[in-house]
Amino acid sequence: MKEILGYKGRALKAISEAGAEIGDTAKVTCGKQSHEGILIPRSEYADVEHVVLKLRSGYNVGVRVTLGTKIQKVGKGATPKFEAPPPPKQKPDLPKVAILSTGGTIASRVDYRTGAVRPAMTASDLYSVVPELADIAQIKTRILLSVFSEHIKAEHWTAIAEAVAEEISGGADGVVITHGTDTMGYTAAALSFALHNLPVPVVLVGSQRSSDRPSSDAATNLIGALTVAAKGPFAHVTLAMHGTVSDTSIAVHLGAKVRKCHTSRRDTFKSVNASPIAIVDEGQIVMLTSNYVERDRARQLVLKSEFSEKAALIKFHPNMNPKIIDWYVENGYRGLVFEGSGLGHIAGYCFDAIRNAVKHDLVVGMTSQCIWGRVNMNVYDSGRDLQAMGVVPLDDMLPETAIVKMMWIFGQTEDADQAKTLLKKNIAGEFSPRTLPDIFGVE
Amino acid sequence: MKEILGYKGRALKAISEAGAEIGDTAKVTCGKQSHEGILIPRSEYADVEHVVLKLRSGYNVGVRVTLGTKIQKVGKGATPKFEAPPPPKQKPDLPKVAILSTGGTIASRVDYRTGAVRPAMTASDLYSVVPELADIAQIKTRILLSVFSEHIKAEHWTAIAEAVAEEISGGADGVVITHGTDTMGYTAAALSFALHNLPVPVVLVGSQRSSDRPSSDAATNLIGALTVAAKGPFAHVTLAMHGTVSDTSIAVHLGAKVRKCHTSRRDTFKSVNASPIAIVDEGQIVMLTSNYVERDRARQLVLKSEFSEKAALIKFHPNMNPKIIDWYVENGYRGLVFEGSGLGHIAGYCFDAIRNAVKHDLVVGMTSQCIWGRVNMNVYDSGRDLQAMGVVPLDDMLPETAIVKMMWIFGQTEDADQAKTLLKKNIAGEFSPRTLPDIFGVE
Repeated sequence: MKEILGYKGRALKAISEAGAEIGDTAKVTCGKQSHEGILIPRSEYADVEHVVLKLRSGYNVGVRVTLGTKIQKVGKGATPKFEAPPPPKQKPDLPKVAILSTGGTIASRVDYRTGAVRPAMTASDLYSVVPELADIAQIKTRILLSVFSEHIKAEHWTAIAEAVAEEISGGADGVVITHGTDTMGYTAAALSFALHNLPVPVVLVGSQRSSDRPSSDAATNLIGALTVAAKGPFAHVTLAMHGTVSDTSIAVHLGAKVRKCHTSRRDTFKSVNASPIAIVDEGQIVMLTSNYVERDRARQLVLKSEFSEKAALIKFHPNMNPKIIDWYVENGYRGLVFEGSGLGHIAGYCFDAIRNAVKHDLVVGMTSQCIWGRVNMNVYDSGRDLQAMGVVPLDDMLPETAIVKMMWIFGQTEDADQAKTLLKKNIAGEFSPRTLPDIFGVE
Repeated sequence: MKEILGYKGRALKAISEAGAEIGDTAKVTCGKQSHEGILIPRSEYADVEHVVLKLRSGYNVGVRVTLGTKIQKVGKGATPKFEAPPPPKQKPDLPKVAILSTGGTIASRVDYRTGAVRPAMTASDLYSVVPELADIAQIKTRILLSVFSEHIKAEHWTAIAEAVAEEISGGADGVVITHGTDTMGYTAAALSFALHNLPVPVVLVGSQRSSDRPSSDAATNLIGALTVAAKGPFAHVTLAMHGTVSDTSIAVHLGAKVRKCHTSRRDTFKSVNASPIAIVDEGQIVMLTSNYVERDRARQLVLKSEFSEKAALIKFHPNMNPKIIDWYVENGYRGLVFEGSGLGHIAGYCFDAIRNAVKHDLVVGMTSQCIWGRVNMNVYDSGRDLQAMGVVPLDDMLPETAIVKMMWIFGQTEDADQAKTLLKKNIAGEFSPRTLPDIFGVE
């Protein structure tokens, strides 16, 4: 049987029998129900039962293949390549920006419009989609990964950090990374810890609606991110996405302070316990803080891109089983981050397990599941007791940033004391000063 | 050695030697540092090393007892009882409200002002603190528990639900439950599922600052909650707390839709993907929805107060170890709730473990760690694959509500199919209709 991208078992068999291929228009009928659309590829994790069609509406539908299911090839797919205009001439006076693609919705126009899976994000493809880009920077594009971001893990963070370092040493004045939004906040934190002494801005960008849907935010976000990479006065890892429901304003968040806070809205990313560092509005960058490291091409980047898998995030809830903590100890974990309740608490019935973890030299950090605010483990007995056991209060650090930091720390050192010192040190702006106005939620 | 509430080991020895007791003013000196304050009791989970003083500022400090630490008794504690005025005459024309106390900061004025630990929340104590209460309802008080809410677990939910049922069958026109704020959202969800066919309002209330601090929100919250219990036109489990930073307005949230979202602010509780159902402002209840069940004393409460411990909440993060899922299967768990990424996704490297869990008859539900918005597992491959495995999308249900619901479900049934049916059923308003305006964060 011919290989058909991502399909296995029953689904592959039915498609093969219909003589259909990726990109072809197919009709899948089962009883009275039928769906017609472009046959699109599946991921490596796909099951054996479903065929996925892109409907004319732009939505994808998965149809289960059972005994009675019939697949017909209705039309031959267009050749999965763009009829892109020749790329506009690069303007040599503009800053040089490298765009690294990792996958996700923002890359899906190129992927899925014709049914082709491989992101073909050449510079000319990008220009054909968003011609304004040519007026902002000289663009070099590079396809690094092609995965939806829920599958991104530490080894990908390392690869992205290394690619950023290469581009910067190759002369880039800024780097844009396109990324699925699901775990883009985690990757933003990871790069914040991995890229030290940055000379130029690094900007993560994604989109909440794919470019084949009329409401897509992909172009606006990409223009905003490119503007920041090319012209931003700062040299930080940031994340640029729609800041409000308005269509013109892009918020630029510090990588260690940003979190995805809504499943579908375009302004899903929020700086937590901090303000965005800048806004991009009609091509202009407006700084919202004067507290940033200025861009300086002469600065020498230091790459610290190793991460350990031996760290875990545990969200506390009533009746949480303390044996889970023991499990991590028994399995050689080095660091645990708790999402405690309120100011940084855990139930007393977990105390023995936490004591045991600390006794076994695990580093244990405490964040709050409230998300906003900061832990304060001096107010109540539970907090004081946990501190006395050796639990480290992580102030206003996001739980998501904290687990990434813990993974990064044990990529740098094996020593628990050094690890604790790193954990408490403000490395990438993950701690906000106490004097900040009390920022809560969304304006 | 005389027993001194909550103290053990080294700390107990040092206090005993000083001849001090709970409530006494003590000075603890170690080297050049010294602290003076009222000696306050410790919880059953306390360590053996710390002595805790309530400073004049109202803050508590824990001082570690080492070899060089010296404790002096400076003054005799006031008798730990209120010099309360005689209780105001109950006004027989007012509604009857039972106030059940479970502990937490809101009960701490009575606990800690004099150093006494046991909440002595008689009606006259309450009136002496907040005399306005006598104009709202005839109050009966009952001390049910005396624990900080991080220690609250399923057996407490059952006890609270049973006590509410007793008060209602005893003639209460409404019930107020004072509770620590840390897990008050979980308890609100638990009571929402346990108390069916409610005739009158049940209102949870807490405070973010203890009553011995000038900025306390305890009195305003209590007055608001009592007003709702006495006069609210609806019969739901709700949670009443400051709705904004303003000092006059109390928001009333549906128990299944509310979440603690800030570690310290008074307006920490937010209705997520829903609006509060009412506001109490200057004693007046303003309904924000017409979609509620009206109070009706003739309605017959149905108590379903059993919860199972065999359910767990797992927050997904990059590099999450799928063996954790196996651990729950091996340990006889019946239900798992995931906090997935984005629209309800989990990395492909966890798929085999999830398939295995479903194969072993575990019920697996999916929520989003975004908190706001709703899962939609039809948009991307990962979502479709997880659904095909049997994972149940939980729409806009809060992760915290979902784990409580899962625990409640397996308190009601052993059958996985029945459990799934209950999981998908809108029992206490835990699902909001799709037609709701897109509410995000905090206005």
